[in-house]
Amino acid sequence: MQKPNYHIFVCTSSRPNGQQKGFCHTKAGVDVMARFMEEIDERGLGGEVFLTNTGCFGICEKGPVVVVYPDNVWYASVAPEDVGEIMDEHIEGGRVVGRLAL
Amino acid sequence: MQKPNYHIFVCTSSRPNGQQKGFCHTKAGVDVMARFMEEIDERGLGGEVFLTNTGCFGICEKGPVVVVYPDNVWYASVAPEDVGEIMDEHIEGGRVVGRLAL
Repeated sequence: MQKPNYHIFVCTSSRPNGQQKGFCHTKAGVDVMARFMEEIDERGLGGEVFLTNTGCFGICEKGPVVVVYPDNVWYASVAPEDVGEIMDEHIEGGRVVGRLAL
Repeated sequence: MQKPNYHIFVCTSSRPNGQQKGFCHTKAGVDVMARFMEEIDERGLGGEVFLTNTGCFGICEKGPVVVVYPDNVWYASVAPEDVGEIMDEHIEGGRVVGRLAL
């Protein structure tokens, strides 16, 4: 299989048992996920940038949490309107967005 | 925050909207997740090895899927009884488990 250059993980508070509770879910994690999906699609990056929703990362007070691998960069309190900047700067520009990074 | 040395992602087919459908869920992804949780705990690796359940990785026919970052190593058709080997070889030994890797 083609592996991703970047893999973006977005907490949507999904529990392994299918329950959905928690902070990122109530704090727009699902909207952040949707925005990333749109941006990746609009930029034609679907083959090289993967996007996956996740369960809890354990730092709920900093949610919605977005993690970018293989860089191991963690973004906190991400709003849907931050997604374009993460795409421009980090995913397309290779520069970490300092104001959001943990 | 302390970032992980290894971050293990296990597909449990959790949808962003809280639904849980798909192959990894029906094919023991949840049991694989539980086994990793036990192994990480028993080995005292909780501070350096993170474990997160995810939604679909898009290769359902190869599920349950486990992805290890920052290595960008993808394991396919992982059974609960494979988890100890991934922990021994990859997470503690630094060697990819070739028979399971994509």
